[in-house]
Amino acid sequence: MAKRRKTVRKFKRKKPSINDILYCIQVAREAPSGMNAQPWKFLIVREEGKKKEIRKICERGERKFHESVGGKLAEWLKEKHISWKKEFLENAPFLVIILSFKKVPYFIQSTWLAIGYFLLALEEKGLATVTYTPPDTKELCDYLKIPDEYRLETILPVGYSNDEKEKEERKTMEEIVYVDAWGKPHSEE
Amino acid sequence: MAKRRKTVRKFKRKKPSINDILYCIQVAREAPSGMNAQPWKFLIVREEGKKKEIRKICERGERKFHESVGGKLAEWLKEKHISWKKEFLENAPFLVIILSFKKVPYFIQSTWLAIGYFLLALEEKGLATVTYTPPDTKELCDYLKIPDEYRLETILPVGYSNDEKEKEERKTMEEIVYVDAWGKPHSEE
Repeated sequence: MAKRRKTVRKFKRKKPSINDILYCIQVAREAPSGMNAQPWKFLIVREEGKKKEIRKICERGERKFHESVGGKLAEWLKEKHISWKKEFLENAPFLVIILSFKKVPYFIQSTWLAIGYFLLALEEKGLATVTYTPPDTKELCDYLKIPDEYRLETILPVGYSNDEKEKEERKTMEEIVYVDAWGKPHSEE
Repeated sequence: MAKRRKTVRKFKRKKPSINDILYCIQVAREAPSGMNAQPWKFLIVREEGKKKEIRKICERGERKFHESVGGKLAEWLKEKHISWKKEFLENAPFLVIILSFKKVPYFIQSTWLAIGYFLLALEEKGLATVTYTPPDTKELCDYLKIPDEYRLETILPVGYSNDEKEKEERKTMEEIVYVDAWGKPHSEE
């Protein structure tokens, strides 16, 4: 399941049931968390006007970001055809905005662990997404009236995939796994 | 699967196959990551002497931490019977140490997302763990000869569960899900 899953930036118009999204949140909330604080909140946005406004705010930030960026990241963005335009924020049937509660230990780690659970559950339901993190969240959080103690971690546009591109390549196991000592691959035994 | 999974601090002596651990890493490396940087490394430790030394180093840090801690966290630790002792670091057949490469964007987020994948894969293989984060990683990284550009995110002791305790309670869906506006629960529609 994990192997099949890939990042998707184009969505079909067909709207999934909100129950599928709720199911994925039910999976995500089973993740462990520091002090069992469960520091996550899930804000599902499906109103057309709200998605449009979110897109507008994010694209303003993206434009500034793309103007300022250089070096390796700029090359990578160009190569991947990633511009400041974020159509998926308006075109995906749902935006799932995931936030973390800043006042507990390991709030970022715990929340991203739960996001991992959420992504695998989406795949189980045949749904697709891209893990989008806006360059600047201040204006967006104001617009959405998010309290100060919460941090906007990601916006996941969710829907059925309409994206034909291949999954990104993965590093080999030899590159990422060592056994008993740093730098010692498993195969060398 | 996610629902069944719980945190386990006691392990059976029976040793799982290292292939099960490798399978779980194969799942984890399918996680998406910022700029597709795949900033994770997995160091599997199974040597008895090394596990013992890791335990010793972590317990030294834990002792200091437990002496310094107060308030809500101290209460929580007491209530959960969590002391500075970390027997699981020696008694689990495997320690899977997960590290992130600090020089790429979103390295913590990406790595914890992959840890989410790893935990669900462990469950699939009937294996158990606790997401352990040492209070101080400097001495440990020196001992393990981890390069400076890597951050030790967690040590996962892995084995078969020998822990009878119940899974920790989860918040309700109403507490963590809002629809279209902050504070607006799904059920209120």
